[in-house]
Amino acid sequence: MNFKIYIIGKKIDKFFSDAVKEYEKRLTRYCKTQLIYIKNNETLQKKLSDKSYKIIISNNAELISSEELSDKINKLGISGNSDISIILGNENLNCDEKLSISAMDMNLGLQSVITYEQIYRSYRIINNEPYHK
Amino acid sequence: MNFKIYIIGKKIDKFFSDAVKEYEKRLTRYCKTQLIYIKNNETLQKKLSDKSYKIIISNNAELISSEELSDKINKLGISGNSDISIILGNENLNCDEKLSISAMDMNLGLQSVITYEQIYRSYRIINNEPYHK
Repeated sequence: MNFKIYIIGKKIDKFFSDAVKEYEKRLTRYCKTQLIYIKNNETLQKKLSDKSYKIIISNNAELISSEELSDKINKLGISGNSDISIILGNENLNCDEKLSISAMDMNLGLQSVITYEQIYRSYRIINNEPYHK
Repeated sequence: MNFKIYIIGKKIDKFFSDAVKEYEKRLTRYCKTQLIYIKNNETLQKKLSDKSYKIIISNNAELISSEELSDKINKLGISGNSDISIILGNENLNCDEKLSISAMDMNLGLQSVITYEQIYRSYRIINNEPYHK
């Protein structure tokens, strides 16, 4: 599967992008991931493929557990949705689904790291592998 | 105020401790924070001061928003609770309160960073300051 994580706004702090890079590396055995910076909504809308399954991370959405996320990723893969777009930093776009990480407001860098860690955790769960790190 | 964040278990990944260090630095103008590694429950119970207000971060607790957390920290300070212990990685201890960051399971390193970021965000809210990073 192919995950594109879109951030609308400025570059995230180095310590957050270091964490993202590390999870990107750990995830190579399961899927392809890419963090993409986008200037604004119009640019994003042009970039987003119609074939892509679009998930917006929002505070005003359903809270999801790690098990539910892994189940969702698994089912998307099985049903042929191999291209997933996850959008951070904008809630006002057309999407297939909105999901919430937390009731707390969080820095976009932190949201990126959580997103990556949860994708990694999902694949560990899907593959019945222990989660050490 | 004085925050001690206790982690029961192994050292967290470097990219997470880098993020913690950065927030520790940013927080010096508001409060004192310290990340403390603890081997096990018995050691922690000996370390924890009776005067300290103890918060356990747990998945099985009330979800709290950033505004609610800042309000809580503000009220604790006003009521003279200047020593706050936040415990990650163990839910089976006596405490004053349990709070939840997310419905998702998360790496302790990530939980530490979120805790620091939320304390920082709380002080920005308390002091009516904008939150850029």
